[in-house]
Amino acid sequence: MSSGLVQMREAQDEESGLGALVFYSEFDDPAEWADALRAYLPELDIRVWPEVGEVSEIHYALVWRPPSGFFEPFEALKLVVNLGAGVDSLTGRPDLPDLPISRLSDAGMVAMMRSYILFAVTRYARDIPEFEAAKRLGEWRYIHPRPLSSTKVGILGLGILGSAAAEALAWLGYDVRGFDRREKSLKGVTSFHREEDFGAFLGELDILVNMLPLTPDTRSRIGPDVFSALPQGAKFINASRGEVVDEPALLEALSSGHLGGATLDVFWQEPLPKDHPFWAMENVFITPHLASITVPQDAARDVAESIRRVHGGERPLHEVNPKLGY
Amino acid sequence: MSSGLVQMREAQDEESGLGALVFYSEFDDPAEWADALRAYLPELDIRVWPEVGEVSEIHYALVWRPPSGFFEPFEALKLVVNLGAGVDSLTGRPDLPDLPISRLSDAGMVAMMRSYILFAVTRYARDIPEFEAAKRLGEWRYIHPRPLSSTKVGILGLGILGSAAAEALAWLGYDVRGFDRREKSLKGVTSFHREEDFGAFLGELDILVNMLPLTPDTRSRIGPDVFSALPQGAKFINASRGEVVDEPALLEALSSGHLGGATLDVFWQEPLPKDHPFWAMENVFITPHLASITVPQDAARDVAESIRRVHGGERPLHEVNPKLGY
Repeated sequence: MSSGLVQMREAQDEESGLGALVFYSEFDDPAEWADALRAYLPELDIRVWPEVGEVSEIHYALVWRPPSGFFEPFEALKLVVNLGAGVDSLTGRPDLPDLPISRLSDAGMVAMMRSYILFAVTRYARDIPEFEAAKRLGEWRYIHPRPLSSTKVGILGLGILGSAAAEALAWLGYDVRGFDRREKSLKGVTSFHREEDFGAFLGELDILVNMLPLTPDTRSRIGPDVFSALPQGAKFINASRGEVVDEPALLEALSSGHLGGATLDVFWQEPLPKDHPFWAMENVFITPHLASITVPQDAARDVAESIRRVHGGERPLHEVNPKLGY
Repeated sequence: MSSGLVQMREAQDEESGLGALVFYSEFDDPAEWADALRAYLPELDIRVWPEVGEVSEIHYALVWRPPSGFFEPFEALKLVVNLGAGVDSLTGRPDLPDLPISRLSDAGMVAMMRSYILFAVTRYARDIPEFEAAKRLGEWRYIHPRPLSSTKVGILGLGILGSAAAEALAWLGYDVRGFDRREKSLKGVTSFHREEDFGAFLGELDILVNMLPLTPDTRSRIGPDVFSALPQGAKFINASRGEVVDEPALLEALSSGHLGGATLDVFWQEPLPKDHPFWAMENVFITPHLASITVPQDAARDVAESIRRVHGGERPLHEVNPKLGY
């Protein structure tokens, strides 16, 4: 047997000792995920809840909003991977085991969020809502375009997704500012991090984009004070979590005309109830929580790498601090 | 006098010998252009038609669709600059003097076109027309998003604006193909240039973007054969010139349902007549010819450089071949 074959056999033996993974999601296709994971870890035993077999063999959980008490039987767990970027549904729960928790943050998800933010910002910067209205009336309504550099876009929250959106907007030619409580340095982006600069950050914006994660600190963080600090007619885009926004305050700012419009992908209650006032508001654009989703083919590579690392005694990729909530 | 001052004085003397420029446009603000040009060429004498003064002093014309016979009195002209990217209104006219003709192609115009194409493509790739309709009905209609890499976008015409759009779309993660009769090499873009590959280029596209200039060769180039070569349900975006498209064929392809939608910035007749069928079509989005405009502050730098070059006996920037029409 050549040394190459010996090495391959050893690698296989090592992977065959990986054990099993339990999958739980009401929204994602288990077969699609299993196929994607097997492409990277053929030896991983993938079990879809509730068909979990011998629980002592299960070392990894890949889950989206599992029911209360879900983790209890899995005493041999070494890693919990959240099936998405937003971990707020995991970090707040009292039954979360004291284990490495990681989240998904793949290139496909970043690309998808970036495209959503570019779309929503450009829709406002290029006066598209005016042309949508003119189209319905059959009117040729010319509005002289402004250079992209004259549109000031603020990104609140410069995590992986927020940073990617900010840098793409700057690359396209927008005047981009960012705010994050950690100091950040992003190409082409004027970044603020001190709380006392928050008002200056907001005070000049044409468009504010919320990219904050939902944590105990950020719940209803975007309220009346934030909206009133924005210039008259500013637009608001929310593609992170509904609960980061004080929804009644947003409604009030839109109704009063202080805000010129909002593009909302996330809400306090989803699906957004049929009788919610947002539906009838001309200046609100609604998408059904899909600004960014996980693409199994892209994300499985990272999940496999995290499993390999934890199996080898290392930390997983994209680890979350449950106390901070991100 | 220091040698630095001598050089500066000589440079001023040289520029003061530049002579005068005549400006003509019914759409652009002469004062804005004069201010922008003076920032680069303070010595240039700028005259707004019809107040042209002594015509023998006029060496440069900066014009948008001047009337027939416009050029005749200006016997000392050395350069005609078209106030825009599309030179079709100039190159076809019989009274065009035999002089260097140049067009505008500034960074601001490129950025603006790029933002329009990204917007229009992303609107389709992210199912936005479905959400626009759902919003009007007050319906939460979830459509599972597809990875950007699964959307195949074809750019027809890889000039400066088409290339910029193609590269930006590829950078964002779309599957981008380009067609141009000249062989092109663009980052992340699969390019075709042979006429016999045109069908293969069209046959797989989700979205076709027309970026061809209007020339005698391209008039009505996009007709029934092109639309029928696209897959069922494909979308069409036109941000170059209306006349490149066979408009009745486009109407037919949209009405029959073979095309899934169109985003149109340009038309055979502009403003689009009130009774044109496009207005009433749900699957047509209309903008009033503003995908890209010239931004004087950005463009004046190039115009000034062209004037300096022609004054010094060189060729101008962005020169056009009137016989080819681009």
